[in-house]
Amino acid sequence: MPPSLALAYAQAHRPRFLAELKDFVRFPTVSAQPKHAGDIKNCAIWLANHLRRTGLSHVKIIPAERHPLVYASWAGASARPTVLIYGHYDVQPPDPFKEWRSPPFEPTVRAQGLYGRGACDDKGQMFAHVKALEFLLRTAGRLPVKIKCLFEGEKEIGSPSLMRFLERNKHKLAADVAVMSDMSILGPLHPALTYAMRGGLSLGLEVRGPQRDLHSGIYGGAIHNPLQVLCEIIARLHDANGQIAIPGLYNSVRRWSETERDYMARIGPPDEQILEDAGAARSWGECGYTLYERTTIRPALTVNGIVGGYQGPGSKGVIPARALAKLSFRLASDQEPQQVERLFREHIARLTPPTVRSRVRAVSAAKPALASRGHPAMRAATLAYEKGFGAAPVFLRSGGTIPVVNMFQSGLGIPTVLMGFALPDDRMHAPNEKFHLPNFYNGIATCIWFLAAVGAARKLLFQPKETEAELASSAL
Amino acid sequence: MPPSLALAYAQAHRPRFLAELKDFVRFPTVSAQPKHAGDIKNCAIWLANHLRRTGLSHVKIIPAERHPLVYASWAGASARPTVLIYGHYDVQPPDPFKEWRSPPFEPTVRAQGLYGRGACDDKGQMFAHVKALEFLLRTAGRLPVKIKCLFEGEKEIGSPSLMRFLERNKHKLAADVAVMSDMSILGPLHPALTYAMRGGLSLGLEVRGPQRDLHSGIYGGAIHNPLQVLCEIIARLHDANGQIAIPGLYNSVRRWSETERDYMARIGPPDEQILEDAGAARSWGECGYTLYERTTIRPALTVNGIVGGYQGPGSKGVIPARALAKLSFRLASDQEPQQVERLFREHIARLTPPTVRSRVRAVSAAKPALASRGHPAMRAATLAYEKGFGAAPVFLRSGGTIPVVNMFQSGLGIPTVLMGFALPDDRMHAPNEKFHLPNFYNGIATCIWFLAAVGAARKLLFQPKETEAELASSAL
Repeated sequence: MPPSLALAYAQAHRPRFLAELKDFVRFPTVSAQPKHAGDIKNCAIWLANHLRRTGLSHVKIIPAERHPLVYASWAGASARPTVLIYGHYDVQPPDPFKEWRSPPFEPTVRAQGLYGRGACDDKGQMFAHVKALEFLLRTAGRLPVKIKCLFEGEKEIGSPSLMRFLERNKHKLAADVAVMSDMSILGPLHPALTYAMRGGLSLGLEVRGPQRDLHSGIYGGAIHNPLQVLCEIIARLHDANGQIAIPGLYNSVRRWSETERDYMARIGPPDEQILEDAGAARSWGECGYTLYERTTIRPALTVNGIVGGYQGPGSKGVIPARALAKLSFRLASDQEPQQVERLFREHIARLTPPTVRSRVRAVSAAKPALASRGHPAMRAATLAYEKGFGAAPVFLRSGGTIPVVNMFQSGLGIPTVLMGFALPDDRMHAPNEKFHLPNFYNGIATCIWFLAAVGAARKLLFQPKETEAELASSAL
Repeated sequence: MPPSLALAYAQAHRPRFLAELKDFVRFPTVSAQPKHAGDIKNCAIWLANHLRRTGLSHVKIIPAERHPLVYASWAGASARPTVLIYGHYDVQPPDPFKEWRSPPFEPTVRAQGLYGRGACDDKGQMFAHVKALEFLLRTAGRLPVKIKCLFEGEKEIGSPSLMRFLERNKHKLAADVAVMSDMSILGPLHPALTYAMRGGLSLGLEVRGPQRDLHSGIYGGAIHNPLQVLCEIIARLHDANGQIAIPGLYNSVRRWSETERDYMARIGPPDEQILEDAGAARSWGECGYTLYERTTIRPALTVNGIVGGYQGPGSKGVIPARALAKLSFRLASDQEPQQVERLFREHIARLTPPTVRSRVRAVSAAKPALASRGHPAMRAATLAYEKGFGAAPVFLRSGGTIPVVNMFQSGLGIPTVLMGFALPDDRMHAPNEKFHLPNFYNGIATCIWFLAAVGAARKLLFQPKETEAELASSAL
């Protein structure tokens, strides 16, 4: 199809693309909250029907541990490479509700943004791929590559079923390259390819004291308050220099070469930019590293929430019987989630006073991931961004975690392209999440060009699979 | 009325007394939660109607800052002393809901206990006084004393309107003695008169960091987490010896004589009893003091709740923009709430790192209170317990706070008798609060005997008003 016709098609269908994306965002697919299980199922059905109407085949809703996967494929390009498109249709909890300007599941357009939980992470970004497939099937009647789509409903709870599913279906899912869009670029005109992600380890830490909540007047001063103890433990998880104060935690963290750190300093966002994006006046953390480094090549430990005692309006005179913290690590290259969990458990045991009991529960874990900047699939993505955004991408590390990246790369041996469309101020995981609509439309174009570039390269594009170690060194 | 007839009346009406108390408990009068304002109003109307039917006059619902007072009086005994009966019909928040065996506002009898929020604190205990008045008015047709009833709807939020109301109505509320039942005794057969209560100071401590919640992957390690800072601040509010680590806090705390401490050791519950009542395996707190002392003559600082970050099921990858702790002090004799608040604010300012901002908000304050064990009204109460419970009471200190006690004693100069009917395991402020029904019935009898004893003593009973200092020294 000539470029002018393609442009006309895309522009003519934008209102429908947006309306469909709003329908998609309207499902409150909060995977962490059991009450939304039905909504997630309904969204999976909606998505499956949408993929069928798009022209994909073998559309299936595949039950998983908690929320189903949606699978679809297109195999009409027999001699061409296979591209595995990954995305997730589940979303982060929208809490705190009252900070949303418009309700999280009533998608609303303001200025150039579509506001709603999941508008950006990841419904909007994954939908760009779906619309790219539709565009190609409707205008050309075929795709330039073989396609397998795998859309997950459990990403935001750490993809608990995915590894087992991938292992069992290794052959069915075989692909030459995987692509996903679930990360930020630098700005509307500054695309970026992500070549590294941190791993993750989510934990619950519970402290229990008396058998029941106690009147804080009658017992205050004589019984150790589990909520106070929890605070005292958390206070000892970082030292005064902003480092995680768990013995041995940094032993396995990879030390990067000066070359790599110079590259990061040249390409990555400066400290001021990160602070501005965060809406924070001052930085914090490990001395000797830029903010970009602290959030990508160094581990982090965050208290994501505390549930303890009275949380309603006003006050309540109570010593709560128990208190719970939700914590998560972000893991740097070469850190193993199991080892970090063991170090954490040992440290908590040391910090727990004899007046209370503590318990650590692992919620989810994911290994860090690294991709080679020099892989030919990256060149296809670079070309695609140049066409879709009018600018060449830079290579960025992300501090976030997408469990499937490591699974694809190390588990299935599929090189994975992380081609984000989110902006740094899209407020992923926060109230008033939005998706910048020009990025949605440019993203669709980028996805089209990516498939075209991969298809044009045929098998020749792909070099022998690299091991993770090779990928790591080639990233230098 | 001969004792046998009185007994017959009381026993014949027990089922109705219980049914009425259940009606009273059914109102969810949670004063801290604005959504219950209507329930509190309805309860005040129910209570006022009940007092009218009981035979009291001048029944009034008096608007206050947030929730109304209910007032009633009976002035038919012209030459007799006036007794001011105080109680509160508001209750603590019932949270956490899911730990209740039966719903908090569906009062349920199990074994000998009436379970429900407020069954004991304070609806059941204040209702014993109301039923005593009814009993005397129905059987004798009159009361042995003049009566003023003042029932509050704001006690559990620190009685914000009460002091002003008392000052404005000092003459209307003039009384020879005040009595209230809102505290524990030692056991079903071991009554106790409370002669001291701790003061209270409820505070909110908020820590704010970035302008909005942040993705903990993208920013973790570079931005100081307000929830972590809050924990770090709270961890520095106590030292390793269980003392409150706020400079100057103990300066004004009264040092009691060895005589008083010996008395406390002889009369008060031993450590093992307090631990058993608390359902706790081990004690904690200031060295050099028994648990009874730690909870009565020493100050305490409790974190009652933390609201910060994600609190739903599962996990959420977020650095919350702000975190809030609800804290409360219990103040020992001679500690002034304003001074403690100032020391707290100064300390928080010192502990707040430059990466975040902190804010302290005072929620409520109440001074400690002391009554004379030797006051003649105590003798009337002693007699009443002997008749009502078949045993002489001991004199106890309570670690709790009833703002009105200091207001009555120091503000209005009315000696106040604290005649509790609650048991140590009644779970006041906690899930599964109950009222031991034999204590309800014995409490009604005790209230009757108390009024009779005060009435019999006429004016002679009362000695010149003592100042608080005199009360304090006479307590030794």
